[in-house]
Amino acid sequence: MKSPIPDYLRRVLEDARPHDSGQPASYIDVLAKADTSRSAVAVATVDGSVYSAGDDDVEFSIQSISKPFVYALAIQDQGLAHVLKRVGVEPSGDAFNRLSLEPGTNRPMNPMINAGAVAAHALVVSTNATVDQRVDRIVQVLSGLAGRQLQVDEAVYAAELKDANRNMGLAYMLKAAGMISCDPQEAVKGYIRQCSINVNVRDLAMMAATLSNGGVQPVSGKRIISQESVRQVLSVMTTCGMYNSSGDWIASVGIPAKSGVSGGIIGALPGQLGLAVFSPRLDEKGNSVRGVIMCKQLSHDMGFHMMDVSQIAGASVRSWTAIIAGGSKQNSGCRQAVTVFELRGAVRFAGAERLTRAVMNELEKSHPNIDTDPSLDEDTHVCAVIFSFRDTYSLNDVARRLIHENIRRLSLTMNVVIIDSAGVLRLPLNQEGDFRKVSVVSTEAEARVQIGGMGCRVVNKDSL
Amino acid sequence: MKSPIPDYLRRVLEDARPHDSGQPASYIDVLAKADTSRSAVAVATVDGSVYSAGDDDVEFSIQSISKPFVYALAIQDQGLAHVLKRVGVEPSGDAFNRLSLEPGTNRPMNPMINAGAVAAHALVVSTNATVDQRVDRIVQVLSGLAGRQLQVDEAVYAAELKDANRNMGLAYMLKAAGMISCDPQEAVKGYIRQCSINVNVRDLAMMAATLSNGGVQPVSGKRIISQESVRQVLSVMTTCGMYNSSGDWIASVGIPAKSGVSGGIIGALPGQLGLAVFSPRLDEKGNSVRGVIMCKQLSHDMGFHMMDVSQIAGASVRSWTAIIAGGSKQNSGCRQAVTVFELRGAVRFAGAERLTRAVMNELEKSHPNIDTDPSLDEDTHVCAVIFSFRDTYSLNDVARRLIHENIRRLSLTMNVVIIDSAGVLRLPLNQEGDFRKVSVVSTEAEARVQIGGMGCRVVNKDSL
Amino acid sequence: MKSPIPDYLRRVLEDARPHDSGQPASYIDVLAKADTSRSAVAVATVDGSVYSAGDDDVEFSIQSISKPFVYALAIQDQGLAHVLKRVGVEPSGDAFNRLSLEPGTNRPMNPMINAGAVAAHALVVSTNATVDQRVDRIVQVLSGLAGRQLQVDEAVYAAELKDANRNMGLAYMLKAAGMISCDPQEAVKGYIRQCSINVNVRDLAMMAATLSNGGVQPVSGKRIISQESVRQVLSVMTTCGMYNSSGDWIASVGIPAKSGVSGGIIGALPGQLGLAVFSPRLDEKGNSVRGVIMCKQLSHDMGFHMMDVSQIAGASVRSWTAIIAGGSKQNSGCRQAVTVFELRGAVRFAGAERLTRAVMNELEKSHPNIDTDPSLDEDTHVCAVIFSFRDTYSLNDVARRLIHENIRRLSLTMNVVIIDSAGVLRLPLNQEGDFRKVSVVSTEAEARVQIGGMGCRVVNKDSL
Amino acid sequence: MKSPIPDYLRRVLEDARPHDSGQPASYIDVLAKADTSRSAVAVATVDGSVYSAGDDDVEFSIQSISKPFVYALAIQDQGLAHVLKRVGVEPSGDAFNRLSLEPGTNRPMNPMINAGAVAAHALVVSTNATVDQRVDRIVQVLSGLAGRQLQVDEAVYAAELKDANRNMGLAYMLKAAGMISCDPQEAVKGYIRQCSINVNVRDLAMMAATLSNGGVQPVSGKRIISQESVRQVLSVMTTCGMYNSSGDWIASVGIPAKSGVSGGIIGALPGQLGLAVFSPRLDEKGNSVRGVIMCKQLSHDMGFHMMDVSQIAGASVRSWTAIIAGGSKQNSGCRQAVTVFELRGAVRFAGAERLTRAVMNELEKSHPNIDTDPSLDEDTHVCAVIFSFRDTYSLNDVARRLIHENIRRLSLTMNVVIIDSAGVLRLPLNQEGDFRKVSVVSTEAEARVQIGGMGCRVVNKDSL
Repeated sequence: MKSPIPDYLRRVLEDARPHDSGQPASYIDVLAKADTSRSAVAVATVDGSVYSAGDDDVEFSIQSISKPFVYALAIQDQGLAHVLKRVGVEPSGDAFNRLSLEPGTNRPMNPMINAGAVAAHALVVSTNATVDQRVDRIVQVLSGLAGRQLQVDEAVYAAELKDANRNMGLAYMLKAAGMISCDPQEAVKGYIRQCSINVNVRDLAMMAATLSNGGVQPVSGKRIISQESVRQVLSVMTTCGMYNSSGDWIASVGIPAKSGVSGGIIGALPGQLGLAVFSPRLDEKGNSVRGVIMCKQLSHDMGFHMMDVSQIAGASVRSWTAIIAGGSKQNSGCRQAVTVFELRGAVRFAGAERLTRAVMNELEKSHPNIDTDPSLDEDTHVCAVIFSFRDTYSLNDVARRLIHENIRRLSLTMNVVIIDSAGVLRLPLNQEGDFRKVSVVSTEAEARVQIGGMGCRVVNKDSL
Repeated sequence: MKSPIPDYLRRVLEDARPHDSGQPASYIDVLAKADTSRSAVAVATVDGSVYSAGDDDVEFSIQSISKPFVYALAIQDQGLAHVLKRVGVEPSGDAFNRLSLEPGTNRPMNPMINAGAVAAHALVVSTNATVDQRVDRIVQVLSGLAGRQLQVDEAVYAAELKDANRNMGLAYMLKAAGMISCDPQEAVKGYIRQCSINVNVRDLAMMAATLSNGGVQPVSGKRIISQESVRQVLSVMTTCGMYNSSGDWIASVGIPAKSGVSGGIIGALPGQLGLAVFSPRLDEKGNSVRGVIMCKQLSHDMGFHMMDVSQIAGASVRSWTAIIAGGSKQNSGCRQAVTVFELRGAVRFAGAERLTRAVMNELEKSHPNIDTDPSLDEDTHVCAVIFSFRDTYSLNDVARRLIHENIRRLSLTMNVVIIDSAGVLRLPLNQEGDFRKVSVVSTEAEARVQIGGMGCRVVNKDSL
Repeated sequence: MKSPIPDYLRRVLEDARPHDSGQPASYIDVLAKADTSRSAVAVATVDGSVYSAGDDDVEFSIQSISKPFVYALAIQDQGLAHVLKRVGVEPSGDAFNRLSLEPGTNRPMNPMINAGAVAAHALVVSTNATVDQRVDRIVQVLSGLAGRQLQVDEAVYAAELKDANRNMGLAYMLKAAGMISCDPQEAVKGYIRQCSINVNVRDLAMMAATLSNGGVQPVSGKRIISQESVRQVLSVMTTCGMYNSSGDWIASVGIPAKSGVSGGIIGALPGQLGLAVFSPRLDEKGNSVRGVIMCKQLSHDMGFHMMDVSQIAGASVRSWTAIIAGGSKQNSGCRQAVTVFELRGAVRFAGAERLTRAVMNELEKSHPNIDTDPSLDEDTHVCAVIFSFRDTYSLNDVARRLIHENIRRLSLTMNVVIIDSAGVLRLPLNQEGDFRKVSVVSTEAEARVQIGGMGCRVVNKDSL
Repeated sequence: MKSPIPDYLRRVLEDARPHDSGQPASYIDVLAKADTSRSAVAVATVDGSVYSAGDDDVEFSIQSISKPFVYALAIQDQGLAHVLKRVGVEPSGDAFNRLSLEPGTNRPMNPMINAGAVAAHALVVSTNATVDQRVDRIVQVLSGLAGRQLQVDEAVYAAELKDANRNMGLAYMLKAAGMISCDPQEAVKGYIRQCSINVNVRDLAMMAATLSNGGVQPVSGKRIISQESVRQVLSVMTTCGMYNSSGDWIASVGIPAKSGVSGGIIGALPGQLGLAVFSPRLDEKGNSVRGVIMCKQLSHDMGFHMMDVSQIAGASVRSWTAIIAGGSKQNSGCRQAVTVFELRGAVRFAGAERLTRAVMNELEKSHPNIDTDPSLDEDTHVCAVIFSFRDTYSLNDVARRLIHENIRRLSLTMNVVIIDSAGVLRLPLNQEGDFRKVSVVSTEAEARVQIGGMGCRVVNKDSL
């Protein structure tokens, strides 16, 4: 049996192919002569599968798509605070090659326009590194992101260098403004080499997927970019990635993205996947015509829009009280119960808050669930509380802290048993601390044993 | 037992209180005389709980925070396509009261600056509605969002109207540019009434939570804003919500937001919650000084940053093959097995892709799991495939379609049983269609029965 | 015999007529329907002759050509210092209808763009005048400039008022910025009435000639605009009169000018003449196509370019020593001479400086002109100095002061006789002052008498 | 006796000296360390006298004051049309070091901002000249203008070159925009050498006087700049010379001017003089504080404002009819008369027009001056017309053509005698042409003879 995903990508590609408006970039011959029939699309998941269609092994120069990654590298090498002194984060409302220095700070408006990208490049390794040192580091890191050794296309580099007057102009302006420390000529040469690295859509998809995966390359499992850098890069891609149509892109496509003049576009959907498209004909804003069409199609079909709340899922909380001993209602007085709180899904603040509320509600009652469960009555004795994290997919920090606090407070008056096979809760257990009366077990069977040890006899084991 | 959340909010508030720089807005007396000691914070969850601290019942005029909601209303009433002809979506790089008409289209750059907000206001109800009709509708909808009847503050309205020259100027410019159809005076009057609606932080938090909840008011459960509008509004809040510091806001706070001149700020974290802060002293950009501090604190503490991939969780897939009959390896030839695919969590494309991959892998093997499971061998016969969605929290459209396709393809050659108690899969079952050989059941017990009916005798029922 | 000037103007007009590109202004019907065949040209001299050709009695609304005159009026009514607080003088680099408030001061950039013109209008009479008071004054003054009673074209006014949204917008913005004190609606209404005053090219040429004549209407001889206002108005017309092509206009045409949307253009060549052209088709900058062609032709043919130094003439100084008694060289010892300084032309600093130099040179010699004039020798006695202003066309202040000083110093040691029939020198003569030893006479004959009275017998009367 | 002019300049200088606000330019050490007590002023007339006061022999680098002269040189070497393709003429509204490329044409806005000055520099000699060739030519021409050999200050050059990043940036931008053809590095080096030429105020005053004198150096009498270039340069100085305060400068000072960062300012009053001031402290716009004060004082005191119509003088026409024979009224029938037209002053169109009018008036009457002169009656016979140009200081082209035309027409029916001792009229006399009936003589005596030859007996010779 074949996966339907490649079929889908092929269909997306074929649907875009008839759109043959636009022209390839004409400022250098090597781009102007691009085969405009070439088109490709690739999707890489955060656990490392790559799907692609079309000319997925055709290489092209990465151009501006290098910008977010080199910005990340600058943050890595110099720290965010220092980078922010040299490059801003505000959308400029301008085309990619405008100077756009920020009034007051003299910073280039953001790292996605050329001026900001040159300034970011000049921060890689250190402010007094050589061109070779910077480019070597960049090629190495981009290769790491792509999962294979990438190369500078020397023909593209030579052609771009001959046509580098505008970037030279920007670099000297940046130098004059104190925004780069190195020789402007070196900054431009390095920047152009960075832009001349060859990639294909599969490489780009994997590089984007690394951003989506928080900086850890999905296949190699290596952390290549820090979480802090990834957050910053994705933020800037969101507001500035598509130049002066960034607002429109976020509203209509809803994925942090970056395009390049050779016809590539990447998109990084946080936590989910990276995508890349390629086709040389550009629209008047410098974005690949077919590339934009494919991205819109993918976003629409696959629910990729960041702001599409319907696509976002949270966590759920279920709570109930289980009679664990004592049998029928007639046999009241000796019935024993445990209250179980089960938290399912990917839990962030909202999920933890729901659990907190459930705990509050439960414990405000004098007797458990009397109102809703006819099998319970006033004589039922709640002998323990169980928290089950068996189906908790993940907890973020605030959720964990909030749940810890719930457990701490409860454990002052109740026996508390935690079922946490995957260890998501990370309770700081020790003999002296807040949680010394709390037991953590891995399975329901162990929980039953534990409750038994509390003097409760567990009869109805299915209820847990 | 008390919830720790109010304590936390109180601490956030107290930590912000010593920051007493800035001044309240001075352009009208009624704002200039605001009690600058007033401060409040509120958080509302997408299922309707509201937590707050400080002066949470103090009312203030909503001002610019009305903009995203009225923009949503304009989209509702006129359709997105029409609204986009009158108001753009690009960040302007300008302060809130700049004219900023987009070259070429003449549209105000976006609906978060005054010009765009006036244009959006003028689209509410219809282009030939009266001021009263528009304002009535807006008050009604904002009341619906807040969950209580809101009122226009007539003193604020009167003062703002006296000082409305700049907005009058914008409105006449918009009229000249063909961006509003009604009388400019009426547009401004209506817009000012809209800005003069009184709210408190609890109202605002609930209004924001409605956005986070995809347009459905958490408490009333009523859909007030369409999903399409919400997506558009949150997108525009992301790129333009904080005027010319939107880029910095997204990078540092990471929540779609909007601030108002009376000292309020809202933030809407999609799928999770709405938050609102209030304190009258403004910084030089017109944002509440303490409000910004509180938002940064909340974002940092609670992992609210949209681009913080570490906060984002996906789905997991587990698959295994269970020997359901035949016993020991010696007894080969008559051993029967089922392959089980279990999908857990909130499933979007990435999760469904993972399932697809698991299915592909499994079925490419001539025999199930022979390599990894020593209890299996070549003689084991796989008699059915089971998909378990018992722990699938949610499926989005693309995930559902992809899984349907997997099942369809598998069912051409295999018996397929689906365990889907919650009905998340929504298979279009009928006698003729693609899925006529697929059984859907609610529990594992039913699955066992079903497999039995296929000629498989289930012995090891725990394995399912 | 007929004057060749009308023939010349007719030829200029006919040469321009074939140029039929461009379109009349289309924003209001009454302009859009203009008869595009209409063309006219007129020239008015600073002493009141008017020459014209073509449709010189066709009336059209004055539109923006009213701006310089109303700016002058504002200066008249409020003083330049006050006007400068409300309207700047810098070229904006923008089209006529841009807002262009100056950063820092909030002033509209200059009074030739609409915003500045509205602000200037609102200063006429007084800041709390009524629309009627302002318009009455403007109509009266413009009528005085034109030399006949002008009228507001009510059809144009009505149409412009209906389409006044942009100007209303500007006016409200100006109000918000504190640049106008009156109701913005009133400012716009008055401004539009001002623009709707009907004129023909002969009116306009006379109005421009009044500027060229320093503010005195050439025919009536009445001072209508103060010298200070004229200087300011001509300066602003020079740098800002033709909107964003002012630099090109000054470089290529070289005449302070102003154009209007109904197809008129005026030019004011200081000290010489006013010109006006009219034809409704406008180029993309809003200037009359044929009008621009005619202005360029006139400037080229007639040497009107302000910066064409070849067209500028100064003054000349002649000095010589005349033997007035004593006869031949052999008869030395009793020969007597006078030194004569004759100043011809329009004398400003440069001419007076030349005279000063001649006086210095002359008096540094021990004996007059010995080197150059063989008839003189050491025994010749210079008994007086004569200054002849018979051919001095005019003296400006600095020239007068400088010559006074020369005379004062000379008279300390010499007899000085002034021939000044036209009274250009204005010596402050009295019995006590600096000039008590100076005689002023009207003719050479009187000078001879005067010298005779000094003990010199004048023999060679032709030499004086 | 001493000239009062140096005294005046000294007073102007001393009045400015107490103004010690501002700071010298700080971007390079060699300027920052300037002796701020240094101040000087100089005035040079168009016939070559130079007056100065203060530190008039202190040299400083010419800096931006070189711009107008090098712009003139570019026009000289490439033609105005070509230069206009590379450098615009519109005021930019920007500071001197802004990029300001004109939308559409990509030209730097004007040659007075750095970008335009670099582009102009790169046009000197030829587009493929070397740095040395360009700089040699510029030094040579500036030396010719100053009247002495100037030198590049190598210390300033070295310091400026080290700090040239901004200009390098501009040059690369210009190269990218196709506005310079040479290597950007070479353009900047040459431009900086040009700016590093040392001058004193006397040099500068003479250079400015050359502009005022239409391009002919006043002392050497050599034409250094063509008339066309001078007109263009003075025009651009008028609208753009003082950067973003050009409008204010023209309104308040009224002299085409240029300032430099080392503290110099030149002004060129067409046809009159050049002035130069120097003092190192600069205001926030980069103009010499004392320099501006001195210029304002000079303009005010000396009536230098271009738009001050009161300072501008024209020409006058006098006409009368002289009885040259026949005596008393009783003796009518045989009385003969000539009509005399006398034109005085610097005659341009306006003067020639006045003459034309006088001629028309005269000849429309059946008999001369009957109405106004009681000595004339119907029997007086006008036997000739005399034009006297004895007191005509100058004629420009249009005036000459117009007068020619008057004479040509008159001569069809009348005897015409021209008195033109200085030969200003330049009639194309020959036996066949239009003017074959016209006599040109040098003196009134000759005129009398000539009229006698026409059969008129001249009796009252004083009347001519």
